[in-house]
Amino acid sequence: MKFIDKLNSRVEHNGSLLCVGLDPDLIRLPVHVRESEAPYFMFNKAIIDATAELVCAYKPNSAFYEARGAAGIEELQLTCAYIQEKYPSIPIILDFKRGDIGNTNKQYARFAFEYLGVDAVTIQPWCGAEAVKAFLDYKDKGIIVLDRTSNPGAGELQDLSVGGQQLYLKVAENVRDNWNKNGNCLLVVAATYPKEMAKVRTLVGPDMVFLVPGIGTQGGDLAAVLAAGLNKKKTGLIINVTREIIFAGTGKNFAAAARDKALSLSAEINKQRGVT
Amino acid sequence: MKFIDKLNSRVEHNGSLLCVGLDPDLIRLPVHVRESEAPYFMFNKAIIDATAELVCAYKPNSAFYEARGAAGIEELQLTCAYIQEKYPSIPIILDFKRGDIGNTNKQYARFAFEYLGVDAVTIQPWCGAEAVKAFLDYKDKGIIVLDRTSNPGAGELQDLSVGGQQLYLKVAENVRDNWNKNGNCLLVVAATYPKEMAKVRTLVGPDMVFLVPGIGTQGGDLAAVLAAGLNKKKTGLIINVTREIIFAGTGKNFAAAARDKALSLSAEINKQRGVT
Repeated sequence: MKFIDKLNSRVEHNGSLLCVGLDPDLIRLPVHVRESEAPYFMFNKAIIDATAELVCAYKPNSAFYEARGAAGIEELQLTCAYIQEKYPSIPIILDFKRGDIGNTNKQYARFAFEYLGVDAVTIQPWCGAEAVKAFLDYKDKGIIVLDRTSNPGAGELQDLSVGGQQLYLKVAENVRDNWNKNGNCLLVVAATYPKEMAKVRTLVGPDMVFLVPGIGTQGGDLAAVLAAGLNKKKTGLIINVTREIIFAGTGKNFAAAARDKALSLSAEINKQRGVT
Repeated sequence: MKFIDKLNSRVEHNGSLLCVGLDPDLIRLPVHVRESEAPYFMFNKAIIDATAELVCAYKPNSAFYEARGAAGIEELQLTCAYIQEKYPSIPIILDFKRGDIGNTNKQYARFAFEYLGVDAVTIQPWCGAEAVKAFLDYKDKGIIVLDRTSNPGAGELQDLSVGGQQLYLKVAENVRDNWNKNGNCLLVVAATYPKEMAKVRTLVGPDMVFLVPGIGTQGGDLAAVLAAGLNKKKTGLIINVTREIIFAGTGKNFAAAARDKALSLSAEINKQRGVT
């Protein structure tokens, strides 16, 4: 099944555009979890069981697992396997922002699509389409190209003018025209830049889905994002929230606190979308 | 000790600008190695012992280890630990081309500098200097920014004109003026684009070191690269060769074949540098 079909089917099924980022951080885990043998997996498992019916996707960021070395990678694998077994209709986006040249990207793709078996990945634009063909050739996977990032200094390169067009728009245009031959491309467009998001939506049309970081801790404005990015079907966005949900509670009841936060966020998104 | 001092001291000590890429690939390993319990570590160990006196640095690319999941990451760690223990004067460059926003880059930096303990890393330019501060703040490490990559399609973004200057030159200029406040930045400038390398050298001056991929299998021309990139001291380049060296032999004597190839390459580099 293609990633985009799996995502659309999930959104149709439960009406949620909320994606939960699974980025554990040892010092922020409840003490009883931190001291368990596989703390990241135990933490994720509880968060997943508490939020599964409220999400359209999960998005682990590989950095948080790599920080713990081989043990962390094993816990990332266990997390993906758990979702695949228990909640097979929920797509997994591996946020790993890789981007090398062809021969090497084949290896990164093996990590994502064979070892972990995820449904989609984030990649870098810097080396061009030819370099990332190894990713783009996975027709059934979602290939999410970093376009407009959420950080305050995102504009250093992304806002530069190339022939009268800003670089993040040029990248979006290239993805639309050349990278997306298999219809499997998405874009990262951050919630902290709603004006820029509106321009990207106009440029690429209604069908390309945006992965949207920056709501929550990073301060993105939900109403502005929905106004800028939704298509006429009131979809086209995967709204990721991480810390505000997964670290909503700090004690024994952290999973229930995460569920409450996910519930209120997905309800708020749907209220503002005009969907009930 | 700062990366750049460790590198310079190594180059002074053995006169070599050759860096060997440690990118094992299961299907290309000699059968007797492939069937061992830790094939990548066994392979690397033999390559390292055979080539140590001929190199200025080793450069494992994390993709090849990630492709084998947690087991691969463990072998990457064993490889780094082996170099650190047996050849502590040889710097290790982790080629992982990461680039996320601040909070996440801290985790990637932990993987590189704490779990693996490497001396330098490669990073992406797309999110700007503010995003990669977590890397730049490691004053003693080498932070190698992807500038001009070796692939045929590198120009898709890198050659775009921004205010009359090509984008890869703009990145080099930004690194020179803003990213390099701790004097710990280097640039990736590929051997397959010697004309572009000459422009980057002119722009950033003689002291910034370039990590140079693309000699060997990828077809970069050594004489052109040396003419374009060497500074007046006949240094300033880390010339990486991977497949042509590590896969020089396919049987029991693969390490000796790698040594022979590394020996002839480092001699050829020095002959063309006019250093004996």
